Amino acid sequence: MDNPDQYRPLSPEELAERLSTVPAIAGRIGSDPAGWQVKEVGDGNLNLVFIVRGPKGSVIVKQALPYVRLVGDSWPLPLYRAFYENHALVRQARRDPGAVPEVYHFDETQALIVMEFLSPHKILRRKLIDGETVGGLGGFLGRFCARTAFRGSELSMKSADKKADVGLFSGNVEIPAITEALVFTDPYYGAEMNHHTEGLDPVVSGLRSDARLKARVQRLLMKFASNTETMVHGDLHSGSIMSTSDESKVIDPEFVQYGPMGFDLGMLVANFLMAYFSQPAHRYPSELAGYQDWLLSVIDEVFTEFEAEFRRLWETERTGMLYPAALFEDQGQSSADACAALLAEIRTDAHGFCGIEMHRRTLSLAHNADFEDIEDTVLKRRLEARNLEMGAELVRTSETLGSTERLLDLARRFNAKDIL
Amino acid sequence: MDNPDQYRPLSPEELAERLSTVPAIAGRIGSDPAGWQVKEVGDGNLNLVFIVRGPKGSVIVKQALPYVRLVGDSWPLPLYRAFYENHALVRQARRDPGAVPEVYHFDETQALIVMEFLSPHKILRRKLIDGETVGGLGGFLGRFCARTAFRGSELSMKSADKKADVGLFSGNVEIPAITEALVFTDPYYGAEMNHHTEGLDPVVSGLRSDARLKARVQRLLMKFASNTETMVHGDLHSGSIMSTSDESKVIDPEFVQYGPMGFDLGMLVANFLMAYFSQPAHRYPSELAGYQDWLLSVIDEVFTEFEAEFRRLWETERTGMLYPAALFEDQGQSSADACAALLAEIRTDAHGFCGIEMHRRTLSLAHNADFEDIEDTVLKRRLEARNLEMGAELVRTSETLGSTERLLDLARRFNAKDIL
Repeated sequence: MDNPDQYRPLSPEELAERLSTVPAIAGRIGSDPAGWQVKEVGDGNLNLVFIVRGPKGSVIVKQALPYVRLVGDSWPLPLYRAFYENHALVRQARRDPGAVPEVYHFDETQALIVMEFLSPHKILRRKLIDGETVGGLGGFLGRFCARTAFRGSELSMKSADKKADVGLFSGNVEIPAITEALVFTDPYYGAEMNHHTEGLDPVVSGLRSDARLKARVQRLLMKFASNTETMVHGDLHSGSIMSTSDESKVIDPEFVQYGPMGFDLGMLVANFLMAYFSQPAHRYPSELAGYQDWLLSVIDEVFTEFEAEFRRLWETERTGMLYPAALFEDQGQSSADACAALLAEIRTDAHGFCGIEMHRRTLSLAHNADFEDIEDTVLKRRLEARNLEMGAELVRTSETLGSTERLLDLARRFNAKDIL
Repeated sequence: MDNPDQYRPLSPEELAERLSTVPAIAGRIGSDPAGWQVKEVGDGNLNLVFIVRGPKGSVIVKQALPYVRLVGDSWPLPLYRAFYENHALVRQARRDPGAVPEVYHFDETQALIVMEFLSPHKILRRKLIDGETVGGLGGFLGRFCARTAFRGSELSMKSADKKADVGLFSGNVEIPAITEALVFTDPYYGAEMNHHTEGLDPVVSGLRSDARLKARVQRLLMKFASNTETMVHGDLHSGSIMSTSDESKVIDPEFVQYGPMGFDLGMLVANFLMAYFSQPAHRYPSELAGYQDWLLSVIDEVFTEFEAEFRRLWETERTGMLYPAALFEDQGQSSADACAALLAEIRTDAHGFCGIEMHRRTLSLAHNADFEDIEDTVLKRRLEARNLEMGAELVRTSETLGSTERLLDLARRFNAKDIL
């Protein structure tokens, strides 16, 4: 028999046996594992996911796999990402209480995290495809981005603590490398694992022949890889959010790293824009405009609440070494303009990251269901073409676009455009 | 008696005894320490510096002290900075062979580096005060900045290696903290350790009351502290350069850290500008214009050679993940514009860092001899005022200044200006 302390992907039985010895779990779901139901429900690519139900309650268990499932075991991935995910969840819970599932137990050897079972939450991407609305969604996400961006930076943290944390997370190399390749580089040339919808070629080659666009994308890659402004979630798309009709949680921060403050914001908005552009394939005409308007209103709320919350934290929690009160308020001077200038730069970065995310989800390895679920190829490529061209426009004009209003106008314009 | 393996500041006798057991040193200066002369020559603030002369040759030994000498032992500084300095010297030697003193031996416990004795080199700052010229100076320094910037970044390095290095250097917290406070923050309010020349108050309060200027400085602090583009020297002023009449070396990288590509370049140019503005106090009128012209020509050479060398490396050594050939050259497209755009951003950052360095050397704790050696207080403050106001102009206009020609014109304009 294997050493029980050695990593291996666990069966439901082995999992129950291991967890029954952890008091924090037994106390939460009941102490006799004979009364538990354990079910593997993972449909992801990187992890096993178990629901463990007992007489007193339920927990979710996520165990990292040593490879990417999508491509078999040909693409090994380090188990230590569970270590970083656990660290991320703990920090996010502190920075935005209630925004992420509570962690009950972490087993480093088994790369296994036991956490709060979210019910009746559903993956947000599925809800958006199904045309469901979620109350307070944009506000929640805007606040989450603002709180984690601000409170994970040297605007708030002691420099020594932040630098120690940068050192800790710098051990995570392989996971950022996935983003660096799949998101920032592969979409812009004929990379091996790319695929895109038939008939989309004219639009795709338009992007790939635009050297200026690619230079901007690479400059953003450089920012992503060489910038430690704050701890970012790293993969904040609508598949990393779970919602009921009026409550949401952010999950799966295994792509956590230090990065630019605008990164999560940009990825997030891209996913709402992709939901928006894909809607004509998922809604009856009578529902379409109303639901698309709601999606745009979520984006508006995200930006509005991000900036309002960031400003609030700037005024009340600016305890780090950056922009110290000694230089502004203590001298009777406002720092509001300094905050506004920083927010404008964050928005510029976010626009760029947003455009890139819109590209990679249509061209690179990991497409999203918003478009993949569309069976009518002609419709699919027409909607994807709008999405790709708006993405390019965002990368090209990120510095001058400015307001949310202009962003949403752009979306409406591309939504009405017949490209292919 | 103390444990000989425990750190303590060494006497010349103790040093000789320790080094005599190191073959690499005995082979270089002679194996019998009885024939050595050991002399402590340090006049710095942070280290003991010994010259060890033997029958076969000489070496220099630098031992870190656990405090800043300037302010007694009230300001402790970690000994591990010698560890980072050694790592920096090794990397710089690889990236720009011959540019830094060769390291012969490193003793981590004693925080002690044995290295090449540079002779007849003198500290460049002293030469500039004395009105001496150095052949090839700007070209050497421009190439040093370009090679270390490029070869220490993900334009060249494998991402995994670069990220491991970021992790290694992230342990260095106290040294960057000195720069963060003394350079970026203290000059802009009445910090405890500040001092400035009598009569300079009107100019100083002009700076300190400019909230927009301070916001730009803090944005650059954020870049300095949260940007890991490349490994920077961190303290590249004219006291960190030793020269003969036609050869130069860069020394003392104990402020090494990962930072923005434009940082060393900006600090360096600031020190030539301070030499320039201080010259009227050091030269006879007949020599003044000629020597000031030479100083500006060095700045011109620094930028010209920095950009030429960076472009050359871009074309021949772009082996990292950033701006890969797959996106440009392999598709028959030039990446020259992408390189030019990046160089323009580096220059913008450099202008900003340059202006800040000009401020802190006149207002914060560590002033430089260029101005400090001026006995005539009225002249001193007039020259310092020019320096301070040009620094402010640089911070304010860094993004639009553009060419070296405009930078040098600005210097000439402020050099002719009667401010106080």
